[in-house]
Amino acid sequence: MNGLTICIIGAGSSYTPELIEGFALMRETLPVREIRLMDIDTHRLEIMEGFCRRFAAHMNFPVTITATTDRRRAIEGADFINTQIRVGGNAARVKDEKIPLSYGLIGQETTGAGGMMKALRSIPVMLDIARDVERYSPGAWMINYTNPTGLMTEAITRHTKAKIAGLCSGGLFPQQWTAKALGVPKESVRYDYVGLNHMNFAYNVTVDGRPITDAEFDLIADRVWSVDHDLIRQLRVLPSPYLQYFFHTTQRVKEMRAAPRTRGEEVQLLEKEVFAGYQDPEGHTKPEALKKRGGGGYSEVALSIMKSVASRADSWAVVNVPNQGTVRFLPDDAVIEAACLVNSSGIKPVAIGEVPRAVWGLVSAVKNYEQLAVDAAMTGDRRTALLALLAHPLVREYELALPLLNDLLEANREYLPQFFR
Amino acid sequence: MNGLTICIIGAGSSYTPELIEGFALMRETLPVREIRLMDIDTHRLEIMEGFCRRFAAHMNFPVTITATTDRRRAIEGADFINTQIRVGGNAARVKDEKIPLSYGLIGQETTGAGGMMKALRSIPVMLDIARDVERYSPGAWMINYTNPTGLMTEAITRHTKAKIAGLCSGGLFPQQWTAKALGVPKESVRYDYVGLNHMNFAYNVTVDGRPITDAEFDLIADRVWSVDHDLIRQLRVLPSPYLQYFFHTTQRVKEMRAAPRTRGEEVQLLEKEVFAGYQDPEGHTKPEALKKRGGGGYSEVALSIMKSVASRADSWAVVNVPNQGTVRFLPDDAVIEAACLVNSSGIKPVAIGEVPRAVWGLVSAVKNYEQLAVDAAMTGDRRTALLALLAHPLVREYELALPLLNDLLEANREYLPQFFR
Amino acid sequence: MNGLTICIIGAGSSYTPELIEGFALMRETLPVREIRLMDIDTHRLEIMEGFCRRFAAHMNFPVTITATTDRRRAIEGADFINTQIRVGGNAARVKDEKIPLSYGLIGQETTGAGGMMKALRSIPVMLDIARDVERYSPGAWMINYTNPTGLMTEAITRHTKAKIAGLCSGGLFPQQWTAKALGVPKESVRYDYVGLNHMNFAYNVTVDGRPITDAEFDLIADRVWSVDHDLIRQLRVLPSPYLQYFFHTTQRVKEMRAAPRTRGEEVQLLEKEVFAGYQDPEGHTKPEALKKRGGGGYSEVALSIMKSVASRADSWAVVNVPNQGTVRFLPDDAVIEAACLVNSSGIKPVAIGEVPRAVWGLVSAVKNYEQLAVDAAMTGDRRTALLALLAHPLVREYELALPLLNDLLEANREYLPQFFR
Amino acid sequence: MNGLTICIIGAGSSYTPELIEGFALMRETLPVREIRLMDIDTHRLEIMEGFCRRFAAHMNFPVTITATTDRRRAIEGADFINTQIRVGGNAARVKDEKIPLSYGLIGQETTGAGGMMKALRSIPVMLDIARDVERYSPGAWMINYTNPTGLMTEAITRHTKAKIAGLCSGGLFPQQWTAKALGVPKESVRYDYVGLNHMNFAYNVTVDGRPITDAEFDLIADRVWSVDHDLIRQLRVLPSPYLQYFFHTTQRVKEMRAAPRTRGEEVQLLEKEVFAGYQDPEGHTKPEALKKRGGGGYSEVALSIMKSVASRADSWAVVNVPNQGTVRFLPDDAVIEAACLVNSSGIKPVAIGEVPRAVWGLVSAVKNYEQLAVDAAMTGDRRTALLALLAHPLVREYELALPLLNDLLEANREYLPQFFR
Repeated sequence: MNGLTICIIGAGSSYTPELIEGFALMRETLPVREIRLMDIDTHRLEIMEGFCRRFAAHMNFPVTITATTDRRRAIEGADFINTQIRVGGNAARVKDEKIPLSYGLIGQETTGAGGMMKALRSIPVMLDIARDVERYSPGAWMINYTNPTGLMTEAITRHTKAKIAGLCSGGLFPQQWTAKALGVPKESVRYDYVGLNHMNFAYNVTVDGRPITDAEFDLIADRVWSVDHDLIRQLRVLPSPYLQYFFHTTQRVKEMRAAPRTRGEEVQLLEKEVFAGYQDPEGHTKPEALKKRGGGGYSEVALSIMKSVASRADSWAVVNVPNQGTVRFLPDDAVIEAACLVNSSGIKPVAIGEVPRAVWGLVSAVKNYEQLAVDAAMTGDRRTALLALLAHPLVREYELALPLLNDLLEANREYLPQFFR
Repeated sequence: MNGLTICIIGAGSSYTPELIEGFALMRETLPVREIRLMDIDTHRLEIMEGFCRRFAAHMNFPVTITATTDRRRAIEGADFINTQIRVGGNAARVKDEKIPLSYGLIGQETTGAGGMMKALRSIPVMLDIARDVERYSPGAWMINYTNPTGLMTEAITRHTKAKIAGLCSGGLFPQQWTAKALGVPKESVRYDYVGLNHMNFAYNVTVDGRPITDAEFDLIADRVWSVDHDLIRQLRVLPSPYLQYFFHTTQRVKEMRAAPRTRGEEVQLLEKEVFAGYQDPEGHTKPEALKKRGGGGYSEVALSIMKSVASRADSWAVVNVPNQGTVRFLPDDAVIEAACLVNSSGIKPVAIGEVPRAVWGLVSAVKNYEQLAVDAAMTGDRRTALLALLAHPLVREYELALPLLNDLLEANREYLPQFFR
Repeated sequence: MNGLTICIIGAGSSYTPELIEGFALMRETLPVREIRLMDIDTHRLEIMEGFCRRFAAHMNFPVTITATTDRRRAIEGADFINTQIRVGGNAARVKDEKIPLSYGLIGQETTGAGGMMKALRSIPVMLDIARDVERYSPGAWMINYTNPTGLMTEAITRHTKAKIAGLCSGGLFPQQWTAKALGVPKESVRYDYVGLNHMNFAYNVTVDGRPITDAEFDLIADRVWSVDHDLIRQLRVLPSPYLQYFFHTTQRVKEMRAAPRTRGEEVQLLEKEVFAGYQDPEGHTKPEALKKRGGGGYSEVALSIMKSVASRADSWAVVNVPNQGTVRFLPDDAVIEAACLVNSSGIKPVAIGEVPRAVWGLVSAVKNYEQLAVDAAMTGDRRTALLALLAHPLVREYELALPLLNDLLEANREYLPQFFR
Repeated sequence: MNGLTICIIGAGSSYTPELIEGFALMRETLPVREIRLMDIDTHRLEIMEGFCRRFAAHMNFPVTITATTDRRRAIEGADFINTQIRVGGNAARVKDEKIPLSYGLIGQETTGAGGMMKALRSIPVMLDIARDVERYSPGAWMINYTNPTGLMTEAITRHTKAKIAGLCSGGLFPQQWTAKALGVPKESVRYDYVGLNHMNFAYNVTVDGRPITDAEFDLIADRVWSVDHDLIRQLRVLPSPYLQYFFHTTQRVKEMRAAPRTRGEEVQLLEKEVFAGYQDPEGHTKPEALKKRGGGGYSEVALSIMKSVASRADSWAVVNVPNQGTVRFLPDDAVIEAACLVNSSGIKPVAIGEVPRAVWGLVSAVKNYEQLAVDAAMTGDRRTALLALLAHPLVREYELALPLLNDLLEANREYLPQFFR
């Protein structure tokens, strides 16, 4: 392991410097020799190349940083291929949010009908990338944070042999909640974990091996974001904050409709500010505005996974991986978000004893939607896309699903060649 | 098999004469010697005893008809125990319908929150009956049409050793639709069948062994009640009419709210009319009004099951039974509604090849609710009842589930000793 | 159903007249118009054509009997394709028996190393037939009694879409044992059934729905052939007589070695006698010697399956079919011998509650062998054939498996093109 | 973690000093404050107490060493309870070896009929210990090397709530073989692992994440002990050396019969020598003879497990644990030997993709035996013990199993109160 080569696809993303910073900080344990920035947006790529070089130099991080629009050249021979693409950019995201909302439905980039649209746009591109990895860098790991990460991972594991870790910072939220609530180090916390990306639950929390008490659970529940704390006390499991869209649907739709801007529109404004910072030829530190952008947890997770895979250590992490019998009520090839053992030989989910009795049906329902959405993205079949919306707990009604699908497909026509041949 | 003894629990039901008629018509193949009518409502029981005797005499059906309020005496030594009870009567049913509707939710006696209330009231009584069967008539079969029949069957199979066939006339609807649409005899039609009571799907339809064509499927789809025919053409499976509440929720709630009376209120009026007929001391045929009451299919199904179980014939029927591996994504002890082989040795689901890809998540979600509802009924635990409503696809939201549960429990206080100790 | 067309592949078999007789006797419920005899052995085919015509005429059975060596012509448009081939004839069978015996192992045409050789010879030919059925008579049913029937069925269901019922008369043995032991009609007896062809167990026996007592079980045990009755009393399940080779291995090998002739050699002698009878131009009834030939049960089973599939009746039968979740510890595509519901829509195994705790490991071990043997037959891969022998409980040792495989393959070289390309 | 308390049950074992040495060497990362030696053999216990104190002092290891025959006192408040008992001592072991051998069967202390006898003697005592742990030290971990370790672990996990790690040094053999064959550090090697204790297979070996080549596999195969290397090349998986008893049965029985002494008899001689060393009041280092005793790998595995459980690190290890869906063809509660994630929250098997196609039936067969043997040990039921022998691939024949069982039970009468009440 004398110097890894890292490829970043979608390097024009405002997140890229977080990764560069992570590599710099971990240079002792995860030695990186070369970082290849790849994007199809030459403008953003140029800005990022300049900034990253200044940033690395400022950190005294001796790494070769190159930029290219040639995907194959970026991938060939790399050890890790980080994928963080956004097909259609934030403009498409805003449509994902607004169109469902116009039907009175949750409008969100990963959950519900909006998440399906993002998947339909992104899966074909991600598949192309995965096939390049198979061909030009077999043995390399894809480290994905393109959302919805569970659907990307399922499409790629079902249709290619590329190795992929589907990441989400959410897998470590229960660790953070517990650490804060109980005043213990994060490293002392472990738990069982079941579900899918953004549809998951942590339970059987232990601190240094000791099961938490009921009173401690209640303290931790108070730290969970966005889901009612009394509800969590009833559930007795720690939900992903995205469960707010399932347990508080009407309330959230009301709030979303009342908001002056969608989250996507806010991000558009923020990104302008952030990129102004990156573009500053004197700038060599992360712009202040980046903090408001959020999502920094991803790079932390990504780096720890890359470190475990590239070393002789074993570690515990929450990753999106094929089920392979772990959750017995889901198909073997279904991708789940699971507590995993990560080491040089790969990423494998660990066995689950009891599944929390209150939530397995919801997990099944969303996975049914997900598998249909992946199939629709692969085939461009409208009927399958309709079945996916009908299977989604947040859509389900035919009177909504039919016109909503038409609207969404039309609005994304330019990014959906598979549907408009 | 020289003369069976039949026990009917809840014999005051307006359905009872349908059963008597069935036994009369099938006297050659299913010889019945004695029919014991049992009810706790002495008024209705008296009326029914009188009518049934006149009715049997009119049909020249030589059977002994007795009436009793003593459940043990009714059960002891009987071959079949028919259960058709309605705890709280139609007055409670009307509450099951109106309270959810006041929250903008489907108000229905088997589907949604109303169905759960009916289950919470009925399961303890049905369990008492099952324990009497275990004790006083082991080896006898319970033939249940108390709704929700799937939950009754699950409670009894999980908690007693009594043998029970959970019946619903819906299992034969696809046969009827196909026969009418294609002009073939019902007996020529077979199909695969997956799901739960009132949450099920028929597919792989054959006519005399020949798979139907796509065009024939479309013709059959046009015969399905209550679910949009274009939707069925997309699903490519034949749904239970109760799927209307899932695929057309908003529309149905609107219609229910606009209706002058709930179905329960209509039935209350009809029952008055029907019982006036039964009460007529000259009456010896079924009152005209009974036709409007509906549900006659039950007796047809019940009689055919009893005939198969009591003879050396084998038959195919749709019945609610423990899963035992048939639907691989549901627990082994979960009761499913399945195509079964019925004969003297019992009722066993037949293997299913492929489950329709569009609906397994919905089936899982409803089964998750059902298992929690059964647990709540058995324990009287409010938290479990709340989890059941949260798990139900038609409730799910915490802001609805919490006050709704309180309202429903309060309104049914007198029938819920397990919750109000 | 106005007149079926029956094709018999391997019609030169001495069993053919049993089928003809069956069709004649069942002409009311299973009306056959045409019987096509097909064989590659023109000599036997000619004899059989002559005899079958005389035999049919003698029974006043108005059916068209034709003979051909052209497989496609025989199959095209037929309703049922009966397959009863014997690749290599009885001469090869004798080798299947003698070679394993020379290693101190069970030498038998379906069980152990001999059974594997028969499978390696027969599967490629059976696959060719199945592909003809797919092409020239899709929708028709193959009714197979070519042994080992479980392996034939598994090869065909895994590699083609042809419909096939893998038959064995053994599935009804427990019915016969019970009827005789308890003096009840066979039709009153039902049971659970688990395992593979010649590796199976019946249990939970009922007579007219009543579970048998322990004392009755012991009486039935005394009727079982070839397996020690005290052993059966310990097992508390009724084993296939072929279990003798597993539970009494040393004893049976000793007896086989002491016998003046193998069963195959005896059959060779018998067949001469039987064919002399068929050849007699005056002969129009089954020769006396046929009784000693055995195996007549097959035609009974075959006819009852054909009748159920071709009518609107449902029936219970034991057939070899794909597992599809029935036996939860075996793969979904593994063929099992199971209690099935048979009707016009096909043959489906019924759910099994508890598997007898003493024998599931043995069933697994033999199924592991079977799947490897099927793979070896399909690919001609020596290594896979070796793994099959190593996986077989009756071989297992490397010091035996390696030379034994060589001997067996060499001795069958002319029938194993896939191994000697 | 400021000083752990270790309890050793069966501390009179000659292995105890290996553990003491391990604790001394790992004092930095696994700080032990107190070691409690417990045994019912006061003579050996006294010797061991004396030696261990001298040995610890010699290593400058500041630990409190106490000795007791009171199990409760030894267990109460301990962090780890090491169990290494031998009910009946080596004298019983010699019977386990000789009696099966007299029937021409493998005579071995963990495999075959001998292993069952050891289980029947040991399980009741181990259950008593586990119940003491439940009561007096809940939360503590049992670290078991009492053989057969898989059966001990299954009995305890099925019948108590005590936490237990069933250890065997064999789980790391493939790491050692690979390291030696390829000249790589052990820490760089990982693999998939399936099966049971002494009935297991490693495959998908990687070195620093790189899958080994076919040629490398062949080099590793040459390092495997006791199983024919050409056979391993055919299997393409690395077997436990105990597979010799299954794949080379006849050969091993012949060798065992020819040997002047059984392994148990050899150990008896060795132990005398070793204990002479321990008894020497001047002795403060491990006697030379201990090397010949073997089994030292246990303490290495035990210490690494205890370290992971007691720290915040995660590690990969092979341990005997409940299956919980990992091996899909075995029951959920069956104990398997599996690659696990070990950390403070416990020991969990990691998901397995493909099971090697050649060996799953053998694993099933042996697990069937194991579950019956555990049941027999718990109940003292002779019939269940007989079924266990019939289910064992190395016994199976009724003519052997019946007299063999009688001989074994009689010979062990004093240690089998459950069978001789």
